[in-house]
Amino acid sequence: MEYDCEKFYAGLVEHQLIIPVGVQGAFGRGAMFEEVVDRFNARVSAIAGRDGAETRSFPPVVNRKVIEKNNYLESFPHLCGAVFSFFGKELEAREMAQKAVLGEAWTGHLGATDLCLTPAICYPLYPTLAGTLPEGGRLFSLLGWAYRHEPSSEPTRMQSFRMREFIRVGKPDDVVAWRDMWLQRGLELLQSLGLDASSDVAADPFFGRGGKMMATNQREQKLKFEILVPVISREQPTAVCSFNFHQDHFGSKWGIRTAAGEVANTACLGFGLERIAMALFKSHGFDTTRWPAQARRQLWP
Amino acid sequence: MEYDCEKFYAGLVEHQLIIPVGVQGAFGRGAMFEEVVDRFNARVSAIAGRDGAETRSFPPVVNRKVIEKNNYLESFPHLCGAVFSFFGKELEAREMAQKAVLGEAWTGHLGATDLCLTPAICYPLYPTLAGTLPEGGRLFSLLGWAYRHEPSSEPTRMQSFRMREFIRVGKPDDVVAWRDMWLQRGLELLQSLGLDASSDVAADPFFGRGGKMMATNQREQKLKFEILVPVISREQPTAVCSFNFHQDHFGSKWGIRTAAGEVANTACLGFGLERIAMALFKSHGFDTTRWPAQARRQLWP
Repeated sequence: MEYDCEKFYAGLVEHQLIIPVGVQGAFGRGAMFEEVVDRFNARVSAIAGRDGAETRSFPPVVNRKVIEKNNYLESFPHLCGAVFSFFGKELEAREMAQKAVLGEAWTGHLGATDLCLTPAICYPLYPTLAGTLPEGGRLFSLLGWAYRHEPSSEPTRMQSFRMREFIRVGKPDDVVAWRDMWLQRGLELLQSLGLDASSDVAADPFFGRGGKMMATNQREQKLKFEILVPVISREQPTAVCSFNFHQDHFGSKWGIRTAAGEVANTACLGFGLERIAMALFKSHGFDTTRWPAQARRQLWP
Repeated sequence: MEYDCEKFYAGLVEHQLIIPVGVQGAFGRGAMFEEVVDRFNARVSAIAGRDGAETRSFPPVVNRKVIEKNNYLESFPHLCGAVFSFFGKELEAREMAQKAVLGEAWTGHLGATDLCLTPAICYPLYPTLAGTLPEGGRLFSLLGWAYRHEPSSEPTRMQSFRMREFIRVGKPDDVVAWRDMWLQRGLELLQSLGLDASSDVAADPFFGRGGKMMATNQREQKLKFEILVPVISREQPTAVCSFNFHQDHFGSKWGIRTAAGEVANTACLGFGLERIAMALFKSHGFDTTRWPAQARRQLWP
């Protein structure tokens, strides 16, 4: 298999799988791209079917206080996005609109709202869980749009993308056992679709020099795993699914307690839906009718 | 039927249909709320089935140039949302994170990106249609998240919400006939679900004194229709579906031409998915198992 990022991007565009919009990593998705995303997501739902996850849905924006309290700015200041809007009156509105028409900078007229863009699908969930969990903890299923400020010509690195996530909240042993089960499930699912998937210990892209220590610590404690598939390069495969064990980080921040009264532990896992679709198009070609029979049987049962 | 906004909101929360997040109009959605949204959307897809719409999906963010070129700031400066991110280096990042920890204002460290939040689901589509349409024009189906900066305690007035949209691009007569057909379809669909739906000429919430004239003009030319259902009040029913005939506004802005070489006309219609779910919960109660048999048959076929 040949890996050529520009050629792959051009192929996605040519086959109307992604639709350029003039800003890197914010492209539209075509009909067949969406169908692959939907059908993969349906496979995940089928596999999770008997687990009894509670469905929740949050908009692509999150209370700014959640970003602040989770210390997101200490770890990922370079990725954050905040929503700015207009708070002025009519005269200033006219001035702002006039600047926009003339191609002048107008965003200086805006001010911060109470909202940020959601950087991780599970972020809005934790504050809603404050209190005591039932015996055995809880399990949630979410699907949402994440924002990360990292414009790139590399198609798998998006500013706005969807994750299908599951979040387990409870006792440490239960949470870790659940994470391990899904690591195996995720590998099996992706391999059964004909993807060259493997798992590895990983670290988040923490910012700056201080971030290096945080990443080392995260790796040493094996708090993050990823499932990787070659999409853009063989040597540096793309993370298409990630598994994060937060220990009691969110439980203590948001006052979540187990039935026994301990601070709850949490873990989440997320399938990067666009990245998995791209991995499938890279591995099996742009024409889904020519995909391997085993992959087709699973996605179009 | 009694209309009491606060009581309705409390009922939605009590039945875990919506989940407060501390910011007005940005709440989460519970499992049954999402199921109603999904099933209503599936009904719309079934009705549109034979029309041959092309599916596209755009993220909740849009190229800022689209906002500027569409003159959005002249009409709706009060509703716009822009994405601000951090462009500084390590020292400033530490300063910003420190402020956030101390509860001080930190958003002054952010700067405007190339992205705004999508205010209307069809906005990102038009620039991608530049060029000449095939004979008969084109038809698109979109589903996406819109942002409008209008925090409110009124549950149907959201800052972030989903619209299922269809967009017709072509000759004026074709576009208007298609709009009229869907106005009828929309009314029939909502009435068949047991909603007290009616249609009316409408106007967008244009800003300021100049906006009043734009609204009057829009009404006089019958460019906007809405389907309304009482949710919060009988006297002021809620718009749950809107139909906009843009004439050649987007066609001329974005260089879209018909096969005959004329500037294309466009129209769009959007079902407000959360508002329709709320209308159903208001009309039929919070327990979907007790909804009228005819509504249930259609949503759970």
